[in-house]
Amino acid sequence: MTEIPPLARGVFAAALTPLDGNLDPDHGALARHCRWLLDNGCDGLAVLGTTGEANSFGVKERMRMLDAIIDDGIPAATLLPGTGCSAIPDTVSLSRHAVEAGCAGVVMLPPFYYKGVSDDGLFAAYSEVIQRVGDGRLRIYLYHFPKMSQTPLGLGLIERLRKDYPDTVVGMKDSSGDLDNMVAAAREFPGFAVFAGSDSLLLPVLEAGGAGCITACANVACHLARRVVDDHAGGGATESHAALDAMRKAIEVFPLSAALKEIMADHTGNAAWRTVRPPLTPLSPDQVADLTARLDAAGATLPPLPVAA
Amino acid sequence: MTEIPPLARGVFAAALTPLDGNLDPDHGALARHCRWLLDNGCDGLAVLGTTGEANSFGVKERMRMLDAIIDDGIPAATLLPGTGCSAIPDTVSLSRHAVEAGCAGVVMLPPFYYKGVSDDGLFAAYSEVIQRVGDGRLRIYLYHFPKMSQTPLGLGLIERLRKDYPDTVVGMKDSSGDLDNMVAAAREFPGFAVFAGSDSLLLPVLEAGGAGCITACANVACHLARRVVDDHAGGGATESHAALDAMRKAIEVFPLSAALKEIMADHTGNAAWRTVRPPLTPLSPDQVADLTARLDAAGATLPPLPVAA
Repeated sequence: MTEIPPLARGVFAAALTPLDGNLDPDHGALARHCRWLLDNGCDGLAVLGTTGEANSFGVKERMRMLDAIIDDGIPAATLLPGTGCSAIPDTVSLSRHAVEAGCAGVVMLPPFYYKGVSDDGLFAAYSEVIQRVGDGRLRIYLYHFPKMSQTPLGLGLIERLRKDYPDTVVGMKDSSGDLDNMVAAAREFPGFAVFAGSDSLLLPVLEAGGAGCITACANVACHLARRVVDDHAGGGATESHAALDAMRKAIEVFPLSAALKEIMADHTGNAAWRTVRPPLTPLSPDQVADLTARLDAAGATLPPLPVAA
Repeated sequence: MTEIPPLARGVFAAALTPLDGNLDPDHGALARHCRWLLDNGCDGLAVLGTTGEANSFGVKERMRMLDAIIDDGIPAATLLPGTGCSAIPDTVSLSRHAVEAGCAGVVMLPPFYYKGVSDDGLFAAYSEVIQRVGDGRLRIYLYHFPKMSQTPLGLGLIERLRKDYPDTVVGMKDSSGDLDNMVAAAREFPGFAVFAGSDSLLLPVLEAGGAGCITACANVACHLARRVVDDHAGGGATESHAALDAMRKAIEVFPLSAALKEIMADHTGNAAWRTVRPPLTPLSPDQVADLTARLDAAGATLPPLPVAA
């Protein structure tokens, strides 16, 4: 019996999913990427999120990916896999699988096909998932990403979920870009772990008592996000925040998964890193040139790869 | 070896999915509903679409539903199941299953999680599905529903798909509400079957050379949609169009699946019909009263149920 996981804190990369020539996940490359991130500043990994193209993979593919990286030595206690699907049974299957694998928790989108649904409907959906998983070890980090899911998770909904499931609904990845919302959540719900979904908001969220960040750019800027967290704990993170923010701003003008995969292809010399699963597309040559120029202008550097990678 | 299905035409209900007390599909009730629709004006059934809460069910649930109603005697040749998911492997599994079951075709949403994707990405997604299914019997009706999928399928994309897959991409359910788009598609692509996604647009789409309608309200107004198609063929559908339009307008102000299930619960006397799967919610008592008043004012009546139902 796995222990109840402690509350997550710190720097989490919304890990990319490297693919092979058949558009299938490359488990070995994913495990290597995860290990590199953990070795270079990440406290943990939010695998299979938006950046990891999770919703472009089926339930079985997602389970196999998680199993593969754990088998490859990535500690389950560092993992916060995304498990929120359109269909409740899929969310239940993935969440139960993550709990049984010993993951630190799950990052859970609301059902995202139907638009304009009510808080009653969202509350019912999360309740149904929690009750069907039926495991006291389940730790849910709500995934608030209104631009992508088109289904915001408001503070009123969080309050209701916290009231009924205080030990299960323990935090939120807030990818709204709305710092006021993150600050309000951190202040209104003591003990609720609020993660900024953007590197640019990591420092202000830490200053408001938030837990850290879960971000796309941490795939390549994990070392800079680490410095922000450490410097904030030490009292002054202005300079490290500026370095992280500059790298983020160089990347955020492009589609994130494609841009980050381009950076990893360049960094590793492995062209397969550029592959994304449709409907996403790789960057165009013009975009690659623009991205490179912006990263150079920002003075961005990546941590070195291990010699054996 | 099943024959290549003929092009679909006429009145298709986007069939509701009745649920049991455990939120699971009630296969017997679904088959009875399908039979009633076919007996009262429908040429076929677009099961497992938006109205049928398809994306609230997992892949296996969707396959079992299709198998169950075919086993119960609903002719596969009348069925256009929805098969478009966020993940290509899921869309492939469902589409292949529908083809092998002998369905008339499939109604296929684009991958709908990622927003703002390019036509290149959507073309690649549909191509990948078609090539992976790899079956000449596959007939795809594109599902253009920008309000819900947030992923419009423009005429330029259709032109590209028609050029590369003329025998596979054979039609479209257009739920945009934009009659101009439906008329343009019917005129620009000869032999391409354009279905109105709204009953109110059935007559103008027929007048523009379109194929018919695939609609939510046909779950309860199939007899009226039938009259429009028949009267249009006979030369004058103004009166029957007005009756269908009035019933549609009484219903469309409410969330469609919940409102239509309320009408079926009332009509059959079976309260279980009111059950929807979260994140959808049933109508409130006030909404039920309002719906009833609007239907009465519209003079709406439903076809009688079979005595043995």
